[in-house]
Amino acid sequence: MKRIFSPESIVVIGVSERPDNLARNIVANLQAFQFQGDLYAVGLRKGEVYGVPIVDSLDMVPDDLDLAVILTPAYTVPELMDTCGRKGIQRLVIESAGFSEFSDEGRRLEERLVEIARKWSIRFVGPNCISVINLETGVCLPFGPISPEIARRGPVSVIAQSGGVSLTYLGMLSKVGVGVNKVVSIGNKTDLDETDYLAYLLEDEGTEIVSLYLESISDGRRLMDLARSSSKPIIIHKANRGKASQSVAFSHTAALADDDRIVDAAFKQTGILRAQGFQDMEAITQGLSLPPVQGNELLIISRSGGHAVSAADTAERHGFQLPPLPDTFITTVRTLFSADVIAPTNPLDLGVIYDFQLYAQIVEQSLQALSPDAVLLINTYSRHEADNARKLARRVGEIIRELGYPIAVCNYTDIDDIQSIQNEIGYPVFEDIHSALRGLASSRDWTIRRRKRITIAPSFSTTKAPNHIFDEGLLTTDKALDLCESYGIAVAQWEIVQDPDDAVKSAERIGYPVALKILSSEMIHKTDYGVVGLELASASELKTRAQEMLNRMAEVPTGTQSLALMIQKMVHNGIEVILGGKRDPHFGPVVMFGLGGIHVEIYDDVTFSIAPLTDFDARSMIKEVRGARLFDGYRGKAPIDRESLTQAILSLSRLMVENPNIAELDINPLIVMREGAVAVDARGRVTNQ
Amino acid sequence: MKRIFSPESIVVIGVSERPDNLARNIVANLQAFQFQGDLYAVGLRKGEVYGVPIVDSLDMVPDDLDLAVILTPAYTVPELMDTCGRKGIQRLVIESAGFSEFSDEGRRLEERLVEIARKWSIRFVGPNCISVINLETGVCLPFGPISPEIARRGPVSVIAQSGGVSLTYLGMLSKVGVGVNKVVSIGNKTDLDETDYLAYLLEDEGTEIVSLYLESISDGRRLMDLARSSSKPIIIHKANRGKASQSVAFSHTAALADDDRIVDAAFKQTGILRAQGFQDMEAITQGLSLPPVQGNELLIISRSGGHAVSAADTAERHGFQLPPLPDTFITTVRTLFSADVIAPTNPLDLGVIYDFQLYAQIVEQSLQALSPDAVLLINTYSRHEADNARKLARRVGEIIRELGYPIAVCNYTDIDDIQSIQNEIGYPVFEDIHSALRGLASSRDWTIRRRKRITIAPSFSTTKAPNHIFDEGLLTTDKALDLCESYGIAVAQWEIVQDPDDAVKSAERIGYPVALKILSSEMIHKTDYGVVGLELASASELKTRAQEMLNRMAEVPTGTQSLALMIQKMVHNGIEVILGGKRDPHFGPVVMFGLGGIHVEIYDDVTFSIAPLTDFDARSMIKEVRGARLFDGYRGKAPIDRESLTQAILSLSRLMVENPNIAELDINPLIVMREGAVAVDARGRVTNQ
Repeated sequence: MKRIFSPESIVVIGVSERPDNLARNIVANLQAFQFQGDLYAVGLRKGEVYGVPIVDSLDMVPDDLDLAVILTPAYTVPELMDTCGRKGIQRLVIESAGFSEFSDEGRRLEERLVEIARKWSIRFVGPNCISVINLETGVCLPFGPISPEIARRGPVSVIAQSGGVSLTYLGMLSKVGVGVNKVVSIGNKTDLDETDYLAYLLEDEGTEIVSLYLESISDGRRLMDLARSSSKPIIIHKANRGKASQSVAFSHTAALADDDRIVDAAFKQTGILRAQGFQDMEAITQGLSLPPVQGNELLIISRSGGHAVSAADTAERHGFQLPPLPDTFITTVRTLFSADVIAPTNPLDLGVIYDFQLYAQIVEQSLQALSPDAVLLINTYSRHEADNARKLARRVGEIIRELGYPIAVCNYTDIDDIQSIQNEIGYPVFEDIHSALRGLASSRDWTIRRRKRITIAPSFSTTKAPNHIFDEGLLTTDKALDLCESYGIAVAQWEIVQDPDDAVKSAERIGYPVALKILSSEMIHKTDYGVVGLELASASELKTRAQEMLNRMAEVPTGTQSLALMIQKMVHNGIEVILGGKRDPHFGPVVMFGLGGIHVEIYDDVTFSIAPLTDFDARSMIKEVRGARLFDGYRGKAPIDRESLTQAILSLSRLMVENPNIAELDINPLIVMREGAVAVDARGRVTNQ
Repeated sequence: MKRIFSPESIVVIGVSERPDNLARNIVANLQAFQFQGDLYAVGLRKGEVYGVPIVDSLDMVPDDLDLAVILTPAYTVPELMDTCGRKGIQRLVIESAGFSEFSDEGRRLEERLVEIARKWSIRFVGPNCISVINLETGVCLPFGPISPEIARRGPVSVIAQSGGVSLTYLGMLSKVGVGVNKVVSIGNKTDLDETDYLAYLLEDEGTEIVSLYLESISDGRRLMDLARSSSKPIIIHKANRGKASQSVAFSHTAALADDDRIVDAAFKQTGILRAQGFQDMEAITQGLSLPPVQGNELLIISRSGGHAVSAADTAERHGFQLPPLPDTFITTVRTLFSADVIAPTNPLDLGVIYDFQLYAQIVEQSLQALSPDAVLLINTYSRHEADNARKLARRVGEIIRELGYPIAVCNYTDIDDIQSIQNEIGYPVFEDIHSALRGLASSRDWTIRRRKRITIAPSFSTTKAPNHIFDEGLLTTDKALDLCESYGIAVAQWEIVQDPDDAVKSAERIGYPVALKILSSEMIHKTDYGVVGLELASASELKTRAQEMLNRMAEVPTGTQSLALMIQKMVHNGIEVILGGKRDPHFGPVVMFGLGGIHVEIYDDVTFSIAPLTDFDARSMIKEVRGARLFDGYRGKAPIDRESLTQAILSLSRLMVENPNIAELDINPLIVMREGAVAVDARGRVTNQ
């Protein structure tokens, strides 16, 4: 990667003197950004651009250059790559388009690239990208002209699966007072993908924050591993969220889980911050550029009462608390000015004071008196007050630096002075209350997450052979329950019989009351057919119902193989939850937990985690569902046994990890009681490959 | 109001030559904004400011001036007002602070103002405000200096319950290409309140959109009436949303309903758009400044694929659909340029075309081919392309004007050219995809709402005497059910008895199975005490249970007066919902509807409307709850009887309107079946005043 981001020698291939040639812009950019290394240009015709001679053959440049940048028609790229390999040039940036994103022929060309790269141990960026910028070394390889003045150097490095977005983030993060270190547009990510760049940037000294724009995730597991062990915040703007193709779903889990929720789960588990769009990325990086927010206590200071009230609303939405200022504050503040016009409230409304020097003193005093975790300072001023506002900003900048305090300055003014105010402060200035609080909240979330981080990542054993072998296809209730039991999940006692008489004998062994079910792998919701009998308390009741059910099944048109009766011990006094396992193509085994029955289907009250889960993950899931209140004992009921529920979730996680042949498994319901948790019904799907 | 917003003569009171005098800024502002009327200044000492002589007595200015602006210490204001009255000056703007917002003494002063105003038929703005700006007439009365260049004239008038916010909106809406017509900061709204200004501005020719910032709502009913009949969009940024003081709630309704949800309900019913903050107000007014969006079909055109994908995600979140471009489009587009590089997809990615003239043609062609309801045009460009971007903008502006098409232009660029681009287009330019789509969605919501508007507002009969008289205090289940029945809400048959033997006789009259309840006004959740018996199918079962329940109640420590047994017909095969009525201090009678039982308490799945409800309101409520799917027939159940449910909601609405003595009434549950809806339990609270 060092040869890609910080090459000492570069050859640009595809350059000509024609004014509409794009590759010549790469040469121009390198010069504009003062690239200090050796620079060569290759084109069809000899010539010169920006003082750099164009040679007409790659063979005419030295061997073993660090990096080649290719911008020629797609069909020419494989041969050029081969030549690079032969000449010992092992790092390539392929900007040309016309590969798999364009046509089948392009796809074949792209496959050729992979072969040739393997042959010469070449690693490459792209194709179909606008490539790499490194503000530290003056490497600037996009094929459109970039002005150095739009790029402000700073702590954020950007990885973007879109050239346009990479440039937008370069300009945007520079403009909002954050600044950029390195940028890479990853194109078709045929060879190097986002995790390769991320791994490098997490170790890179100049990078303190990594911002990604992704439309697809190539290797979810590696992304999670990198994020889990990262000491730098990672923010991902994940687009392409449209509903995943919802194939006719076999079970609840499959029907409810779409990719985006699994992405959310993976981010949540590993502390990745998710940006909801461009402005959101801006706010999050701005917040992370301030000293870290360590907790939830916020002080709001405002010159305008209205802005203060509006900010208090927004702060509440972001989970901040506004502790009142102590009496010591007002005592001290009275020594500063005589007027008895400022009340020690939070938000602190400075409305009636018109002295910017006092503002700075009040900020200091309030910090001393309250020691909040963060401060939002809202300044509303007209152009007549601009000088004073700038002086205040300078002082606030000093306070941030001296005390290490996260103070988000949010300015509402009628002049365009944001750049100069940012320069005075040396930190980003927010243009809206919502952005400022989003920024502070992101910093808080990251800091707390980092503190709580379970440093030992759960190891993901990629067992080749599953622990349990099944036939391909549906996993019937009996087998699914057995499998659960073998992983330590308690199961309500059950037996399978063939006729009503045996049902009665079975019930006598199990003990009344019992539940009676038709065992058939083809029915999803048994109650749709009225083929579940609950609370059957006597032999006669059971026998009658069993006969009824068999008769009714005879009328159901679908051919139901393996028809049998399941007799099961009734479980009482618990809360029904659902546990599900499935496999995501990018993240692998996933565990779902939710409230059972109508809650999962109508309110979709479920949460996901990527397996293997830590204990912390499992406990978090139980807290996350909206109906979590139910678990604490509701309307006089006893609280449920969280420990057993946690263990059941962890068992399912282990089961999914150790049995890659289980494509899906649903335990629905698991009944969680005051003591213990018991699986009552389950089914699954097996794919042996 | 005309004398306030467009006075022909103004006297400013409180002016002096001292440089720190605030009132002199009012004189300066009037001159800067080229106020053409007569202008007088009154102060303690004679002198002159900005060429206007200061006289030292109000008696020295002519009688019958249109408007007096007062900025003097609070204690002097009553006398000044009295003098104004005597001189026939009947419109006042009182900017002075120090009234009820400051102290009890201030409150008394403020009450004096009301008395004096009444005496002279004076109407006044404030006190404690920064007053009035009218860009049409050059009236500019704030006491801080305002630069005319920050104010761009346009269609929006602003009413703000905060001086700071009024100026922020003046500057912000001017800057983002929308423009402002009139601004009023309403201060303590002691006399004139937001509805007075709103009524005027809805009739005002220069005002096309009204934006309000409110921290409290003075007269919710009048606000609703004005909004309901308005042909102009009204947007309210309602702050001060913090949880209303949650007094220990007597019933579900009271516990769940906070003011903010009632505000939401009122806005929803009358088509008021709610801005969630400053940036949101900006986006909504920008959207409403474009030609109206008539429906849900959106076309996204972008130069950057990444921005297009991200925009598609956001569009989905805002409820837009992206219909594909028809084949005719691609046929036509091929006549424009040869390259076979543009796919007729929506979003339309122009990535590989670098010709701004073609962009304009493609926009036109796509409009012709698809006729979408709105277009989002995302342009990403560098400073090198700024000239072309400006040309494109000009052409797009022409298309908007010629075809009346809402095209939201959203520019991502590294230069600050937004003002010049806005001038080229003649419409607002958005700086973020989210704002652009929020703007278009708001325009769509307003247009559709206006089209569907029920023009006949439900009349709110303010019956002085309630139709039904009750004792103050709790309304027990029997009385509450009777009341429901008298309003046409069906009630499950019931009888009240005193002992188990009578219970059996009652059940024989009603028919088994029955429910058995302890009738006591003091218990909220009967099941907490285990004192509800359901599905009692025989005399012996009933008798045993009745005795058990009476025994258990004897052990409950609270003294329960009026203990009795209620026998009630069991209702089967329905969905439990909850209906509630309560009174809001600002909006009056309110109706709540939600799913019953655990859904209302755990998921808070309820919705509110202000009574009296229209048929449309009631039907909307049924659609709005998240669990609405249940009503369509769920898991083989029959769909519920929406008509009966609608009628029950409307009946409760009428009941609440016609019985102002009913403070609260809960029907919980109402069981809605395939046919019919039956109230099973109800209680309420009566306040006779």
